[in-house]
Amino acid sequence: MTRVLAGRRPVLEALRGNTKIRRIYVEPQRSDEEIQTAADAREIQVTHRDRAELDRMCEGIRHQGVVAVADDYPFREIEDLLVGEGRPLALVALDQVTDPQNLGAIVRSAVTLGLDGVIIQKHRAASITPSVVRASAGATEHASIARVTNLQRTLLMLSKAGLEIIGLDAAGDTDVRTLEPSRSGRVLVVGSEGQGLRRMVRERCDTLVQIHQEGPMDSLNASVAAAIAMYEITGKRIDDDR
Amino acid sequence: MTRVLAGRRPVLEALRGNTKIRRIYVEPQRSDEEIQTAADAREIQVTHRDRAELDRMCEGIRHQGVVAVADDYPFREIEDLLVGEGRPLALVALDQVTDPQNLGAIVRSAVTLGLDGVIIQKHRAASITPSVVRASAGATEHASIARVTNLQRTLLMLSKAGLEIIGLDAAGDTDVRTLEPSRSGRVLVVGSEGQGLRRMVRERCDTLVQIHQEGPMDSLNASVAAAIAMYEITGKRIDDDR
Repeated sequence: MTRVLAGRRPVLEALRGNTKIRRIYVEPQRSDEEIQTAADAREIQVTHRDRAELDRMCEGIRHQGVVAVADDYPFREIEDLLVGEGRPLALVALDQVTDPQNLGAIVRSAVTLGLDGVIIQKHRAASITPSVVRASAGATEHASIARVTNLQRTLLMLSKAGLEIIGLDAAGDTDVRTLEPSRSGRVLVVGSEGQGLRRMVRERCDTLVQIHQEGPMDSLNASVAAAIAMYEITGKRIDDDR
Repeated sequence: MTRVLAGRRPVLEALRGNTKIRRIYVEPQRSDEEIQTAADAREIQVTHRDRAELDRMCEGIRHQGVVAVADDYPFREIEDLLVGEGRPLALVALDQVTDPQNLGAIVRSAVTLGLDGVIIQKHRAASITPSVVRASAGATEHASIARVTNLQRTLLMLSKAGLEIIGLDAAGDTDVRTLEPSRSGRVLVVGSEGQGLRRMVRERCDTLVQIHQEGPMDSLNASVAAAIAMYEITGKRIDDDR
């Protein structure tokens, strides 16, 4: 099976990453040197298609006249995410994040802030759809993403493997700023906007952290909150080799 | 003149804030206890209007059947933002941020993270439109926002008033993590996605900070980057009174 990548930035990141692209389609009027050069380097054909056909391929997602058809998204096994680069692992796991914009934004921040992998759920959650790829600005094409059927069980397994499970929760009793630097790997667990973590997931966490908020509004955007917590986790890796 | 507030959350935050609401319109089928109770408490009338009419009022912005008409946005004078609460001031100034989603998201993070005010430009920048109010989840209704005609001049004035001017810039030579805690007030200056700060604005900054990024992609979303930098600035206020 194949999937569609819609938009200039996602296609460019797919060309820069390891995405198995079968073909790229661009609008006839469009001449895009950067896309063409990158496609030539990987010997991928760029073909003209008119706007109506691209619209049809992308099913309502904005494509800016640039579309790629690629192999299905290459999900990783959870075990693959545990192979670190020497420094402590930093993973993020998502509990029932159903909004494609939030999922895409979180993957983008995870890749850019240097996390080692993203864990999402197979059911009752957003998958790596064309909208998510686009919302991530193509970061999905560089990310290591594993899909699991039972998040609680996965967290238990990661805990047994020596990782510290840190839940981001409005009711958390630890300010994420005060999190101690650590030599052990960490998994940050993030819930959906408005819902937070499910009780069963919360109970799997070693620590529940919250972001200090003040004033009349008590809600950061879910993907902003996730980014701040990921920023703290990556900043608190003690890396003896460095 | 009046303005329109579209959507449940913006109208609710406007009711909770000091927004001068003239009237609230809801779809006839809709009965919203929270809105009604808050409106009753402020003696604001809630009237039924059909969907087509609400659509017309909102000019394409999603309203979820809840719309308010309010007085024009109450911009503050820049001097008003300098009246702190005893602890060091933390302001954010935006240089040519034209995207309403980014502006709304930055205002939401600023309010929630406890910044004291937001400075935007009168020209060549997004103003507080209904889209921005909606993108901020209504945070605009709690924010102190000043509009200035010449950002460089404003930064010079703030600098003379004793504030430290900190620019967020990909080419910054200081990792924002290593920013020293400070007793003096600070202004974080943030540019637009992809553009960064203009040279003239960059030259007004005492320090240029960047957020450490790694991997194949080097771009956090602009509003996520702004949120992380604001989070660092508020976390590094030395407050002797506390």
